[in-house]
Amino acid sequence: MTNIQLTSTINEDNTLTLALQDIPMPQPSADEVVIRIEAAPLNPSDLGVLFSAANISTATQSGSKQNPVITADVPNKFMPALKNRIGKTMPVGNEGAGTVVAAGSSPAAQALMGKTVAVIGGGTYRQYHCANIQSCLILKEGTTAKEGASSFVNPLTALAMVETMRAEGHKAIIHAAAASNLGQMLNRICIADGVDLINIVRKPEQETLLRDMGAKYVVNSSSNTFIADLTAAAIDTGATIAFDPIGGGQLTSDILNCMEAAAARNAGEYSVYGTDTFKQVYIYGALNRGPITLNRNFGFAWGINGFLLFNALGKLGSETVATMRKRVADEITTTFASHYTHEVSFTEALTLHSIESYSQQATGKKYLITPHK
Amino acid sequence: MTNIQLTSTINEDNTLTLALQDIPMPQPSADEVVIRIEAAPLNPSDLGVLFSAANISTATQSGSKQNPVITADVPNKFMPALKNRIGKTMPVGNEGAGTVVAAGSSPAAQALMGKTVAVIGGGTYRQYHCANIQSCLILKEGTTAKEGASSFVNPLTALAMVETMRAEGHKAIIHAAAASNLGQMLNRICIADGVDLINIVRKPEQETLLRDMGAKYVVNSSSNTFIADLTAAAIDTGATIAFDPIGGGQLTSDILNCMEAAAARNAGEYSVYGTDTFKQVYIYGALNRGPITLNRNFGFAWGINGFLLFNALGKLGSETVATMRKRVADEITTTFASHYTHEVSFTEALTLHSIESYSQQATGKKYLITPHK
Repeated sequence: MTNIQLTSTINEDNTLTLALQDIPMPQPSADEVVIRIEAAPLNPSDLGVLFSAANISTATQSGSKQNPVITADVPNKFMPALKNRIGKTMPVGNEGAGTVVAAGSSPAAQALMGKTVAVIGGGTYRQYHCANIQSCLILKEGTTAKEGASSFVNPLTALAMVETMRAEGHKAIIHAAAASNLGQMLNRICIADGVDLINIVRKPEQETLLRDMGAKYVVNSSSNTFIADLTAAAIDTGATIAFDPIGGGQLTSDILNCMEAAAARNAGEYSVYGTDTFKQVYIYGALNRGPITLNRNFGFAWGINGFLLFNALGKLGSETVATMRKRVADEITTTFASHYTHEVSFTEALTLHSIESYSQQATGKKYLITPHK
Repeated sequence: MTNIQLTSTINEDNTLTLALQDIPMPQPSADEVVIRIEAAPLNPSDLGVLFSAANISTATQSGSKQNPVITADVPNKFMPALKNRIGKTMPVGNEGAGTVVAAGSSPAAQALMGKTVAVIGGGTYRQYHCANIQSCLILKEGTTAKEGASSFVNPLTALAMVETMRAEGHKAIIHAAAASNLGQMLNRICIADGVDLINIVRKPEQETLLRDMGAKYVVNSSSNTFIADLTAAAIDTGATIAFDPIGGGQLTSDILNCMEAAAARNAGEYSVYGTDTFKQVYIYGALNRGPITLNRNFGFAWGINGFLLFNALGKLGSETVATMRKRVADEITTTFASHYTHEVSFTEALTLHSIESYSQQATGKKYLITPHK
């Protein structure tokens, strides 16, 4: 029985190598289980590990059809920042789902035998993955591994956004790149929970998609009236917290300025320091790796922070997180349903054609890896 | 007896007017006192109220020598953001010091009669200022009003930086524009308290100034080795919090990247999300009003926030603030001593020559207003 995994390596000669590797079948310790991974999504966060700082347009394919190897150049300027991973063969894949085929000696581990579970944690792009039972989520009877493959990253991130909004005392949310799988989930959660959500998209068809899903506030950042539209929606909802996966460019700045303009509209006295209304933007991705430009017309009551799921869950606390996980398992085929446009095996994932496609991180295009296909 | 005050007005015709105005002598209520203001500093925060968004290079002088009027253009694009102050004659001046010449009926107010006090709160650029006793700080016997004129804004801001560092669990500070009056205070506090401080300056003479004052870490942002120097100092001190009054440009970004590089040096495993070390920059001014450019090589564990003294004091709590105020009164001629290069009367402050000079906000140039001169 093989145990193939997909790996990414930065080499000393300024290249990146993607390859398959046969690794030993894992032996679970007392609180661990071995999961036959049947499906694992390619999330933007996985692409970060997979491609790192490599220039994908230079990618070439070698090796055999059964054992493809992809090589791409890494610009020299990025090498110093990558020194901790040079020469290390890194497993990839932050989540996935499959069947528990072996379990450690503890009763809790034994209880998972034969179950279909979702799992979070590094290295799910392999055929058999060993994980602590705390990293597993038991899927409901009848839920397939494909349905449950994206049970953690997007669902918990979307829920963490709403919980962070509540914990920090805001009452409505602005979300950028809102037509993504994550954005659609957030839209469904907000509708279910009665939270106002302002969806920022770039294209008319994304506006339509979200409106058809019941979104009340959708604004198009490509429109000439974007700033006015976003300000009007901020006035209407009182949104003072935003989540932005893009980063590069002016969107974060635009969001803060629109929130401040909305707050100033209701502010009494003028202050040179801006309004007292605290405005927060969390940047949770780097879809645009270019510089973030802040045009500061938003006073002094503001914060911009990096947002990382694990840190956010740590802040929210274990009780809240347990409730969030249960909700995901209960609603994985509805609220938290993911939609994939492509299903690929390991060898299909390592073709230039596939890589060119999924490296674009285009909204509406999403890959699922099936390691046993 | 006159009570002249200096005022700033944004007019509907896109102009700013600075003028003197004779106002009634105030009547203190029970917990208030009337202070004959003998000295009040021109802080950068005052310039924000004074000049607002006006283009100072267009300033012209009219009126008489006794009653000068300064007029300057306000670019049309800024007018919408200023709508809450259009047509309002605004008093200026955030702090000052003088003698209590009248007091309300409460024993606490009566106890201040004849004392030299420092005062915080809007409108100190007037001859007689009425303030709540909570806004007053009794200066020690022998301290003059000129010595005590800057008892709040700079001293409490510098102390608030150190207390914020402690409250948020950091162990060393990076400070930009560090040769300022505020920076010199912060340097003295950090030396006294044994806190490592990395001073960022722009000029060799500022390096010398701070080193002569005992500063251990001084780095010059104009130097070719700035990034390496700042990173080395961050490694040496473990500084993960910074205070930046500049804002515009790349300095905030440089600081975060250097802190991250320092943290990565000691990080074990590589992570695509950067290190776990949380890095914070507080922006407490707008010496450069241009765009802030963030070149994001600092992972996801970071925050950038506006920093405003009153909000910071609110977070620190009243007990800490009371201790801070006492320290200021005790050490106003040593740790918290301010240095002024110019002393001007109201009419002298409203000449084109003076305005051209103090509007530059140049480090090492500081004005003190003496309303009774």
